[in-house]
Amino acid sequence: MQKFFINTADFTAKTLPPDLVYQASKVLRYQIGSQFIVGVDRKNYLVAITKINLKELEYQVLEELAIDNELDVAVTIIQGYPKGDKFEDIVKHGTELGASCFIPCLLERSQFKVEEKRLANKVVRFNKIAKEASEQSMRNIIPEVKEFMKLKDIALATYDIVYVCYEESAKAGELSGYKETLKGLKKGANIAFLIGPEGGIDEKEIKYLKTFSNIKFISLGKRILRTETAALYALSTVSYERELI
Amino acid sequence: MQKFFINTADFTAKTLPPDLVYQASKVLRYQIGSQFIVGVDRKNYLVAITKINLKELEYQVLEELAIDNELDVAVTIIQGYPKGDKFEDIVKHGTELGASCFIPCLLERSQFKVEEKRLANKVVRFNKIAKEASEQSMRNIIPEVKEFMKLKDIALATYDIVYVCYEESAKAGELSGYKETLKGLKKGANIAFLIGPEGGIDEKEIKYLKTFSNIKFISLGKRILRTETAALYALSTVSYERELI
Repeated sequence: MQKFFINTADFTAKTLPPDLVYQASKVLRYQIGSQFIVGVDRKNYLVAITKINLKELEYQVLEELAIDNELDVAVTIIQGYPKGDKFEDIVKHGTELGASCFIPCLLERSQFKVEEKRLANKVVRFNKIAKEASEQSMRNIIPEVKEFMKLKDIALATYDIVYVCYEESAKAGELSGYKETLKGLKKGANIAFLIGPEGGIDEKEIKYLKTFSNIKFISLGKRILRTETAALYALSTVSYERELI
Repeated sequence: MQKFFINTADFTAKTLPPDLVYQASKVLRYQIGSQFIVGVDRKNYLVAITKINLKELEYQVLEELAIDNELDVAVTIIQGYPKGDKFEDIVKHGTELGASCFIPCLLERSQFKVEEKRLANKVVRFNKIAKEASEQSMRNIIPEVKEFMKLKDIALATYDIVYVCYEESAKAGELSGYKETLKGLKKGANIAFLIGPEGGIDEKEIKYLKTFSNIKFISLGKRILRTETAALYALSTVSYERELI
């Protein structure tokens, strides 16, 4: 069933914002009686339409749905900005997999070719992708995609743990330590995964990261993963470790 | 470092097949002394070029590399054939994540629009993608992509376990049982994940699957995953459970 995230004002008025009214009427061809889910303030409500045309839509709430599809820890993906449209895919699939936040990070080896003036537009687009993916995967919240940041501008010390996915760890056969810390996280913990761009993380950056006491270098299995696969691996393992039994 | 999979005959002759000779000379601009890795019969050798032009290439073996990047169980992805080019992405990223075999499966809800005569070409292309992804991720083997198959033509009983990723399990909050069986697999076990296409697995198909004693219905976390994300989640969890400590 279709889900729409809306704000409190629209929910109080039992309507949708104008763009969604148009979409519901024209694209989805909803009629009186059609049902959908609205997400507001982390809660989900099943609603049924009582009035609809191209410009107006009203609904009544049938029930609050007891859905909690969120991971029990907040996961930020600090992604070394990759080539092409890969960051969009990471936001899309990473949202499905439960990420709370994404930071497009300009690392040394990011081959970054976006004009300065287009950066803000990019971030708007990333957040739109996160919203749509949240609706499709029945998330309770929409992850935030922050603005483009340099590594030194990210408040790394504020996370309980920052896992640094370091290819050299994989090559050196260092496969230890990740599971134990993931198991040990308290509910509500705030963790991050830092993932390099195509060329990996620069040695100077590694040196800088080592100055933080909450950094943990990890390998994501034996094989060399593409940068766009690493975030999905990381999020899948958080879900597996903490949600599945 | 670049890796090429080659056959025994080319390795015995200490050369590469003609298309790779051209690529090494023209595209990669290798010269005498350039090093790369050849993969043959699950083994990896570091080699250095002793002769190179557009049509001829010879190398000497410097050393056998003790690389074993394979999962300790064989994982087949039986993928309900999805829309568009998604299957290609599943093969690419699934190969990085350690899959042994992919079967494009024509399920009831596969919206399948490929002409019969183009099927064989598609499979050739899928296998080429698997080879390239294997080289990039330093696999020891190249996963096989089998021909398009119907569910009833797949020998499901030959697997130790077939995990069926069933969206209804997720909706119903059934999150149990997967981890325990994954942990308990013997080294060398042969497992499969069956993943529905966009519309999911049909009820008649579920009924058929239930006639097998080696089927296990599982959920891949609380959120609804896109079909192309499910295989990557599944493979990530096999790596996490069996490779990381």
